[in-house]
Amino acid sequence: MAMRSIRKARGCWSFIRALHKGPEAAHAPQKEAVKRVFSGIQPTGIPHLGNYLGAIETWVRLQEEHGSVLYSIVDLHSITVPQDPAVLRQSILDMTAVLLACGINPEKSILFQQSQVSEHTQLSWILTCLVRLPRLQHLHQWKAKTATQKHGGTAGLLTYPVLQAADILLYKSTHVPVGEDQVQHMELVQDLAQGFNKKYGEFFPVPKSILTSMKKVKSLRDPSAKMSKSDPDKLATVRITDSAEEIVRKFRKAVTDFTSEVTYEPARRPGVSNLVAIHAAVTRLPVEEALRRGAGMDTARYKLLVADAVIEKFAPIKREIEKLKMDRGHLEKVLQVGSAKAKELAHPVCQDVKKLVGFL
Amino acid sequence: MAMRSIRKARGCWSFIRALHKGPEAAHAPQKEAVKRVFSGIQPTGIPHLGNYLGAIETWVRLQEEHGSVLYSIVDLHSITVPQDPAVLRQSILDMTAVLLACGINPEKSILFQQSQVSEHTQLSWILTCLVRLPRLQHLHQWKAKTATQKHGGTAGLLTYPVLQAADILLYKSTHVPVGEDQVQHMELVQDLAQGFNKKYGEFFPVPKSILTSMKKVKSLRDPSAKMSKSDPDKLATVRITDSAEEIVRKFRKAVTDFTSEVTYEPARRPGVSNLVAIHAAVTRLPVEEALRRGAGMDTARYKLLVADAVIEKFAPIKREIEKLKMDRGHLEKVLQVGSAKAKELAHPVCQDVKKLVGFL
Repeated sequence: MAMRSIRKARGCWSFIRALHKGPEAAHAPQKEAVKRVFSGIQPTGIPHLGNYLGAIETWVRLQEEHGSVLYSIVDLHSITVPQDPAVLRQSILDMTAVLLACGINPEKSILFQQSQVSEHTQLSWILTCLVRLPRLQHLHQWKAKTATQKHGGTAGLLTYPVLQAADILLYKSTHVPVGEDQVQHMELVQDLAQGFNKKYGEFFPVPKSILTSMKKVKSLRDPSAKMSKSDPDKLATVRITDSAEEIVRKFRKAVTDFTSEVTYEPARRPGVSNLVAIHAAVTRLPVEEALRRGAGMDTARYKLLVADAVIEKFAPIKREIEKLKMDRGHLEKVLQVGSAKAKELAHPVCQDVKKLVGFL
Repeated sequence: MAMRSIRKARGCWSFIRALHKGPEAAHAPQKEAVKRVFSGIQPTGIPHLGNYLGAIETWVRLQEEHGSVLYSIVDLHSITVPQDPAVLRQSILDMTAVLLACGINPEKSILFQQSQVSEHTQLSWILTCLVRLPRLQHLHQWKAKTATQKHGGTAGLLTYPVLQAADILLYKSTHVPVGEDQVQHMELVQDLAQGFNKKYGEFFPVPKSILTSMKKVKSLRDPSAKMSKSDPDKLATVRITDSAEEIVRKFRKAVTDFTSEVTYEPARRPGVSNLVAIHAAVTRLPVEEALRRGAGMDTARYKLLVADAVIEKFAPIKREIEKLKMDRGHLEKVLQVGSAKAKELAHPVCQDVKKLVGFL
């Protein structure tokens, strides 16, 4: 019995080693006995329904399913486009409140602020020296984001996918929940991990995407487009903190078609199908059950039913956000503690990388 | 009298504040009552005669002339082109030995290793978000360095001038000794300082170049080209650590012309004029005096005179390098202590920058 305890304790220790230590653990990075999940969210604006259903809900689930989970408020990424410092400062705390209110539990996940862990930019620089410029220039997002810019994007906008790779690799993450628009960036992360391993010896696990069954929420005003924070039409996007009145108004004005019946045919009837998908997602019901509840209603009445379901979903979250935002000190403390925990994991990995590169 | 002492003490205190503190000191960054000199050298290969006369000798002089001087072994820059980790590791210590042997005094200058001060890459990222891509693509060095590369340069090779700007601005440096080939990069540094100040309020002094009377040492094999570490012709470049025999051999084989007289006419007779310039520089004599010493000699005999002068100049440095290289622990300690001192200056500046940007 005593023997067993010792074995267990040793097993636990090597578990921690395998996660945190460098080259020794590197020989079997693909075994995946140990999973580490990493994801990041930019602290810009209040998340909307699409962010909630597409990412945040998944984050909450993953923290229940995995032993080692890191979520980063990636403020370094947010400055790749101009930010007002006072707004950014507030947004970092607001995002912390939102994530906590949505169910991110800092006892289960490491919730931290990217800029407070200096190792991110250090690893990013090293990886920047491993990637050829054309590789970054060919990424869809760079092309899309700079297509309309007169003087070209900033160097930060070009190289942020490398910082993203550093964010992930710095924790030797094995799994990354991503949306479809991030698949190309994940390929870059994987290539950089493999490129580093090839040059300096096996070190980084090659992280895998967790392609969650992302609920792609569409704009309420143009169901052919994704719901977006930056939509100029204020009625297009439902934010977590919207009042009940705003939510009702937005759903009332939601664009559907001239058929009054409620059906789920995303290709033929994207507007009403978007409502059904939202309804199903927020109530956690199958689409069929959502349809059953809308049976016999015209779309005008169904819109109110969906609005009510969203209001009910967000009401406790909204209350919790308001409560958390009253206690700025608490939010700062959560980020401080989380960032210290993240640094504790990041520092030895960064040191090992520096040794491998020849700096130490 | 007591009053004067207090005034003096207070003056001294604000001197230190003005150097180390953030926004308070920022209102008069252009006054230049306080000078801070910064420069960096890559730890790749043993410096040659051109490096010694063009940069290192200037560094030694500047540390005598200025109160606050930082010299960085910029290992992060060295990985913009491929490096062997074991060689790089050794080269960092070798460069430390060379600089100490040449007269860099760690009591007078802060001699440190760039990668050990994490604030460099943090500030670099923030500046990377302030510079448009075309600005970097139009820099001569990027064009020259990638002209021959089939798959384009790395993103690190493109963005290293921004890291260079961070190196300088991180210490609120006011003066930077540079060679002519760095003038364009210094303009970028100045523009980034001004751009940051415009966006976030006056903070960085706009650093000035110290255009030292750089002795442009030419290749011994092709006096139309600069002496270079990477010259494939081993006879072209005289390294600080070359043996007396090697130095004699290289000067003996130095390319001159068919006139045997020793004259100083750089445009018409670049080969022999390069020898005269080297002779004058290593003996610290005016060119006229060097010529007087060569009067009546043919170039063959003069080459030996110059070789002797170089041997005499480098002999004590070479002995000191050998001695220092025996004590690896001492070299590591010098860098550790220097890097800790640099971090002490860099950290509060970086924190102030983070506050201004909105991260804190």
